[in-house]
Amino acid sequence: MIKLKDLGEKGFIKNIIEENKGIWIWGPLKPGDDASAVPYLGGYIILKIDGFASHDSKYPWNTWRDFGWKAVTACVSDILSKGGKPFAYLISLGMPGDMSVEDGLEIMRGVAEAIDYYGGYLAGGDTNSSKDDIWIDVACVGHSSNDPIGRDAQPGDHIIITGDYGLTGLAYLLYLKYLDKKIDIKDVPHEVVSTTSRPRAPIETYDLLNKYRKCIRGSVDISDSLAESLYLLSEFSGYSIKLHDIPINSFVREFSSKENIDPMELALYGGEEFQLILSIDPSCTNDFLKDLKRRSIKADVYGVVTEERRVAVYLKEREIYRKGFQHF
Amino acid sequence: MIKLKDLGEKGFIKNIIEENKGIWIWGPLKPGDDASAVPYLGGYIILKIDGFASHDSKYPWNTWRDFGWKAVTACVSDILSKGGKPFAYLISLGMPGDMSVEDGLEIMRGVAEAIDYYGGYLAGGDTNSSKDDIWIDVACVGHSSNDPIGRDAQPGDHIIITGDYGLTGLAYLLYLKYLDKKIDIKDVPHEVVSTTSRPRAPIETYDLLNKYRKCIRGSVDISDSLAESLYLLSEFSGYSIKLHDIPINSFVREFSSKENIDPMELALYGGEEFQLILSIDPSCTNDFLKDLKRRSIKADVYGVVTEERRVAVYLKEREIYRKGFQHF
Repeated sequence: MIKLKDLGEKGFIKNIIEENKGIWIWGPLKPGDDASAVPYLGGYIILKIDGFASHDSKYPWNTWRDFGWKAVTACVSDILSKGGKPFAYLISLGMPGDMSVEDGLEIMRGVAEAIDYYGGYLAGGDTNSSKDDIWIDVACVGHSSNDPIGRDAQPGDHIIITGDYGLTGLAYLLYLKYLDKKIDIKDVPHEVVSTTSRPRAPIETYDLLNKYRKCIRGSVDISDSLAESLYLLSEFSGYSIKLHDIPINSFVREFSSKENIDPMELALYGGEEFQLILSIDPSCTNDFLKDLKRRSIKADVYGVVTEERRVAVYLKEREIYRKGFQHF
Repeated sequence: MIKLKDLGEKGFIKNIIEENKGIWIWGPLKPGDDASAVPYLGGYIILKIDGFASHDSKYPWNTWRDFGWKAVTACVSDILSKGGKPFAYLISLGMPGDMSVEDGLEIMRGVAEAIDYYGGYLAGGDTNSSKDDIWIDVACVGHSSNDPIGRDAQPGDHIIITGDYGLTGLAYLLYLKYLDKKIDIKDVPHEVVSTTSRPRAPIETYDLLNKYRKCIRGSVDISDSLAESLYLLSEFSGYSIKLHDIPINSFVREFSSKENIDPMELALYGGEEFQLILSIDPSCTNDFLKDLKRRSIKADVYGVVTEERRVAVYLKEREIYRKGFQHF
């Protein structure tokens, strides 16, 4: 008997995609993309479901409110990366009967705060009694008047990355130390706590993604790791990507130098950043970056799409290995 | 500390609805209805999420494929009861890493069979590793060109019920006997096995719900029990309901008489029938019933909405008690 943990999440999903091609909603986005899209009355509805089980998705320094916030953020991030804006959210909760009512309501308060922040409305929910797990699934319904953004890329395209990286990788490192009883929760720096408690999808980019839609050839949400998302873009387009640098968070840089850890490793293989990687026609880069700056969105060009037809990502000429978070 | 099981599912949901009025999507359907609706580009999008944890939603005689089928059916049923038709489905699965890949794929095969049966497309999914539970959440996106059907009713309206009842109540009874080691799985009658393995939402009613939309004042999906759904209609409209009879499945009638059980009890308090209760203007009843019959849909008038302004359901002059399935 082959178990899920033997095959891994990616392998399992590949099987599902393969078996279900016949019933897949064939809009402009392919199965395996961040979300799906369906032409609807002149526009597109963009759809996504994203779930979390608390035992492997909630750090001990996160509250239940944070847990609800993050689940909504993750779903929004996927819709946003396709150029859409969510307008309706459906929530399903699984909780054991001996969980406190207050904690259950706290999850929903985090959900409500996030909906308020990203915009849109709560459109329903369901609750189930779980045995032991506490889980949340968020389904997001978004809209786009433009063609949704896939994961294409052409040789010469600039690679723009929003946000900075390393804090979530550091969080995981510190979590392992905490499990080993080498540190206490109060030793976790507040930069790490706040990033992993209240991650934010860059919803302010929505208007600009649409303004520059004709120049943006591809877009990927960064959820499993920066490296994995770069590989996804390379995989979908078929071209390798060359980066001259990656944006590293300044606190991570400092912390890493003190503790003698590799900040690049933290930045490339953390997860749940919910930021964007874009491949964009170079002729638009300057205007786009200026507009992003005007809205205080951290973003820059970090590389180019090469002519090499191979799934590969290079950082400063060295090919980086592929690894992203996988359930199972 | 008040626990979820102390408050009950209904109490918890009431709290959530109360707290989240400000962010609720205010289409024509109220919070607490079977689904929500949002006016969208000239029509309505109808939205629902429905989840199940296998430990309390999968009988030992159900396969993983049945489990996937049922989850889709439950979601479809809610959209249908509001006069909508689902066109896109999002699936989230929670499974432990030591579950077999084959079983995981079987859940999705049941999902695919149901999507094929009800119509529409798979629009995405997510997988999570659970500790112990196996869960599925299905989000359905439906469409209606007409105003969605709420839960209104006027004095004099006929109460039409589709399907027949008792098999799911009997299933639960036999399940308890099985747990007590008083019967074996092979002793469970095939009528019970098939109803609880492959419940069907009456998707064939979709066209008729829309044809008779002007006469249909209210509609409720029967998921927690026939009694509970009748009470929901009474509660939303504010009028009491008087039934002269309820449709009891013939096998249940036979089995009950042999075993000396009350078939009414089984019919009123089983769950997961996924059929419809409608309140309809009496002037349309005959034509509507004829049309239903022409499509081989079992349905009839079983009562009326009274002028009494009270939440109550009477069966043959006796008020029935209210009880429906609740998680927690």
